[in-house]
Amino acid sequence: MSNRRCSVWFQPDGYRVDVPEGTGFLEAAAEAGHLIEAECGGKGTCGSCLMEVRAASPDGRPSEGDEPRLLYACQARVERDSLATPLGTAPGQRRSIVTGTSYLLRQRAELGPQELGSVCRRLHVQVPSPSIEFCLSDRERLVREVAKAADVGGAVTLDLEVLRSLPDTLRSDGGRVTVTLWCEGKTAAIMDVMPGFPEARHLGVACDLGTSTVVQNLLDLDTGKVLAVASDYNRQMSSGADVISRIDCASRPGGIDRLREQAVATINALLHSLCSTGTTATKDLRAMVVSGNTTMAHLLLGVQPRYIREEPYVPAFSDVPACSAAELGIEIEPRGRIYCVPAVGSFVGGDIVSGILCQRRIGRAGELFLFIDVGTNGEIVLGNDEWLMTCACSAGPAFEGSGVSCGIRSAPGAIERINLWPDGEVRGYDVIGGGKPQGLCGSALIQILGELLRTGLIDQRGRLSSDANHPRITRSGRALAFIVEHGTHTRSGADIVLTDGDIDNLVRAKAAIYSGCSLLLRKVGLTFQDLDAVYVAGGFGQCIAVEQAVAIGLLPDIDRARFVFLGNSSLAGARLILLSSKQRERCLDIARTMTYIELSAEPSYMDEYTAALFLPHT
Amino acid sequence: MSNRRCSVWFQPDGYRVDVPEGTGFLEAAAEAGHLIEAECGGKGTCGSCLMEVRAASPDGRPSEGDEPRLLYACQARVERDSLATPLGTAPGQRRSIVTGTSYLLRQRAELGPQELGSVCRRLHVQVPSPSIEFCLSDRERLVREVAKAADVGGAVTLDLEVLRSLPDTLRSDGGRVTVTLWCEGKTAAIMDVMPGFPEARHLGVACDLGTSTVVQNLLDLDTGKVLAVASDYNRQMSSGADVISRIDCASRPGGIDRLREQAVATINALLHSLCSTGTTATKDLRAMVVSGNTTMAHLLLGVQPRYIREEPYVPAFSDVPACSAAELGIEIEPRGRIYCVPAVGSFVGGDIVSGILCQRRIGRAGELFLFIDVGTNGEIVLGNDEWLMTCACSAGPAFEGSGVSCGIRSAPGAIERINLWPDGEVRGYDVIGGGKPQGLCGSALIQILGELLRTGLIDQRGRLSSDANHPRITRSGRALAFIVEHGTHTRSGADIVLTDGDIDNLVRAKAAIYSGCSLLLRKVGLTFQDLDAVYVAGGFGQCIAVEQAVAIGLLPDIDRARFVFLGNSSLAGARLILLSSKQRERCLDIARTMTYIELSAEPSYMDEYTAALFLPHT
Repeated sequence: MSNRRCSVWFQPDGYRVDVPEGTGFLEAAAEAGHLIEAECGGKGTCGSCLMEVRAASPDGRPSEGDEPRLLYACQARVERDSLATPLGTAPGQRRSIVTGTSYLLRQRAELGPQELGSVCRRLHVQVPSPSIEFCLSDRERLVREVAKAADVGGAVTLDLEVLRSLPDTLRSDGGRVTVTLWCEGKTAAIMDVMPGFPEARHLGVACDLGTSTVVQNLLDLDTGKVLAVASDYNRQMSSGADVISRIDCASRPGGIDRLREQAVATINALLHSLCSTGTTATKDLRAMVVSGNTTMAHLLLGVQPRYIREEPYVPAFSDVPACSAAELGIEIEPRGRIYCVPAVGSFVGGDIVSGILCQRRIGRAGELFLFIDVGTNGEIVLGNDEWLMTCACSAGPAFEGSGVSCGIRSAPGAIERINLWPDGEVRGYDVIGGGKPQGLCGSALIQILGELLRTGLIDQRGRLSSDANHPRITRSGRALAFIVEHGTHTRSGADIVLTDGDIDNLVRAKAAIYSGCSLLLRKVGLTFQDLDAVYVAGGFGQCIAVEQAVAIGLLPDIDRARFVFLGNSSLAGARLILLSSKQRERCLDIARTMTYIELSAEPSYMDEYTAALFLPHT
Repeated sequence: MSNRRCSVWFQPDGYRVDVPEGTGFLEAAAEAGHLIEAECGGKGTCGSCLMEVRAASPDGRPSEGDEPRLLYACQARVERDSLATPLGTAPGQRRSIVTGTSYLLRQRAELGPQELGSVCRRLHVQVPSPSIEFCLSDRERLVREVAKAADVGGAVTLDLEVLRSLPDTLRSDGGRVTVTLWCEGKTAAIMDVMPGFPEARHLGVACDLGTSTVVQNLLDLDTGKVLAVASDYNRQMSSGADVISRIDCASRPGGIDRLREQAVATINALLHSLCSTGTTATKDLRAMVVSGNTTMAHLLLGVQPRYIREEPYVPAFSDVPACSAAELGIEIEPRGRIYCVPAVGSFVGGDIVSGILCQRRIGRAGELFLFIDVGTNGEIVLGNDEWLMTCACSAGPAFEGSGVSCGIRSAPGAIERINLWPDGEVRGYDVIGGGKPQGLCGSALIQILGELLRTGLIDQRGRLSSDANHPRITRSGRALAFIVEHGTHTRSGADIVLTDGDIDNLVRAKAAIYSGCSLLLRKVGLTFQDLDAVYVAGGFGQCIAVEQAVAIGLLPDIDRARFVFLGNSSLAGARLILLSSKQRERCLDIARTMTYIELSAEPSYMDEYTAALFLPHT
């Protein structure tokens, strides 16, 4: 590589990274916090990392007269200032960035250099030599210096393994040692002491442990830079698609161990993938912060989650001190620490606390906001700087593509955008990764519902028109369906349809979320119009069609400028916590101050819900 | 066994135990805190547990007209009120109690019921059930109740293993749980949670980890009762007899691991022996407090001790939080805690801190005292309620029988008492365990030195008379020797002698200890006459001949009533710490407030020492 640096602007965000000439586009994308799926593992064969690249002017606009080229991100190298649009297999069909962090989170939630101060700290310490007069033990002299250097308020502890090698370590470079510390509250645990002040990078991992997908960022804990990104399906998928089926599985003999092992195996495989390029070994990683829902946290720690789904819905723990990597079987440095972001309750987990941590950095001081994470459970938070209320609504997995006859998750083959002509004919659609469609993912389901309402093919109650002459309407027995695509043009050869049963499920899901929002607002005597901002979190939030979401009443009909689409705020929150002790303290505060409202115990919730079963609502 | 109870008075202490009729004498002795060595493991073959037993009146006097019988303690059972004198193989040769705790420590250092409150606590807790309104996690509800019940000032932590089974445990008996807690300072760690309030006993072990001998007490942590005693040689003996050779061994490749394993193996074998009778399994034991010198603590924890013996003589640690049993390989409950009594420095260890803890209970308020533990290092403490000064003098192992041509440790075959006629002929001697003698142990060495001085066979400089006509004096080349016993009457067939070189070693050893005492006193402007009490600790202290010890100047010439012979105060201290959090706090205070004086850095020490090279001294 030369010393020359090039800028790459990644679309659609426009996020810029500066990299040395010759850097691979995949690395440049990782630098930008984008995950580019490379199913073949970077061999240039699967095409999933295809991107459109064109030369850029120094201000990031396309250079005149330069034709865009299609390149495999895993193969191509940055040779000039460029605009890069990750594609899939064909242009026009965007979105191979499935789990990246949005521009907004990268840009505005990022910690400044003066804010960095990882929960996993590395200190260079000069431990004074002992003498006959100054004859404190090795341990005491070290602890004293560390407490001074790290400004620790309380106790400094030392792992036994560290103590064992301490006498020689302290004496091998005249008392100069590099100390790795885990700072939790007022206590600090010395995880490691190495002789001298070596140049090695100080690394950790932020992990979003999702029910379906697990994403990791490799972080330089000194600079806060994201060095690599990796993601994969959660291997627990084989034990059920949602948390409820995972909990069922965990309640059966041997289930909890199997689920724990699957979570750990997923995490370990990603760690190896994070470290597969470059000179980093997984054993060099010192800490990991894991953000996930309450069930995921239970399963990772091997704690029985069954009572989460039994009234009164109480988790075994909401906050727990960091565990050692060895104890959990996570293949970073064995004495490295694994910390789970604290939860609020059974159905509002660390992922939501992470999300609010991001809101705190992005939002304006004093703003009244609503935070919505649409998933199997729609988690909702309403609040401002001073108070937070939260609830979880059993939206069901409809928006994740489950429980809908042709629904699939947001992955290659899924229709993610669709438009209808005014007469209800299909005008066009986008398929993730291109090619023939396989099914409908959440964003398409919202859009199609909005389009059907606009064109009058469904009424306010969500009932499908029984117009037997409409070319897209079909009837089988008493069931009606809207044909999105005929079998001749689909991957499986079967029609892609939306049945009236599917529409029912979708309406119930949106009603659950909308009525949850209404109820929280009503409890504090406010309305949607009072909101300064509505944050929409989750991978789902990244490509939601706002107008249609408003049209069907999933999102409130307020000034569109107040919507903020966060992307993966669970991962971004984990990153904040790993990089800053202050942010960890803050997340504890957030978890503690959030008032959880159990909707099933709210008498007015059923009324709200029933009222919301109309499109957009009553 | 019937319901009738019998009393046994153990001689020479006169300590009484009340046991059910039919109890074995060995168990009754254990109850009394006495260890009876049973080398054959209780098969009735070695004779080392022989005792003289006679019927006693209800007030503990010998019954008239009842002949004493000789019984094996391991075989015989208590059938009536009895006086028992542990012997060895023949009457008149006392002392098979080599490592028991003296009457004084049993009687006066013991904790009253209101003082009991083990560092390893067991609590019965009723954890309230959760509800929609009271929806704290299982962990939080438990921690809250435990903090309330145990009156913990700071954090309550929970082992991950406990958390894993907590949800089911909390729900199996309506929230009634038995919690085992390790209380260290202001923090409490929940080690175990069991459903319900079971009747099981709450057990722990106090351990004196000596360089030569390891002794354990099995304790009922609720009542403070000693349930069993076991002792054995430290298996590290194969790696050297004293701490210096152990440290040398630990500095060689693999040495530290071997020594650690030997210590652990010794401890584990004793644990199994403690539990060999009765229904207790070693896995039922929850905690162990280990009292030993600084090197022993390092080796148990697998920490490199080499810098202990290199100037400026600094240990790797002096105080370290409890470790888990699993981490150390100690075979009690794997989550059980092992706590080492804190040390003052490299040569004043937890055993001495334990000793001062005993002094604090036995001594009078405000008394000025000297505490002497005579061993390879003579550790000395001078102080009162408000201040403590300590030093270690390199006495060398002479008084432990090492470095003396016919010296052996205090074990069967050792001459432990000896008297001379005024003309220097041997009047008689006692052999531990009886039979032919094998060598001289510490107490005999002191006594014979005093007798040789009294009879004029050595002069004030310790020079042996060169009277060629004396039947007991022999010369070989330039070396002189006093013949204690001729080879025809010894086990090995070789003469048992005391050479002028041996006498030199003994004089240097006593000079080292005496001058250490003098120096400490002089530093604070006091003299021996100002002392209110002199405590002599160690197995050695149990049968020391006071008059001769004073005669040769090992002990100061003060009112004999001020001497207090403690026996194994290291074990007694470990017991106090295990049974009482307050005592643990106290031992930390003791370790912290003791001022260590490094004698090699004291200019006047050499003068004191030289002056003490006379008998009794200059």
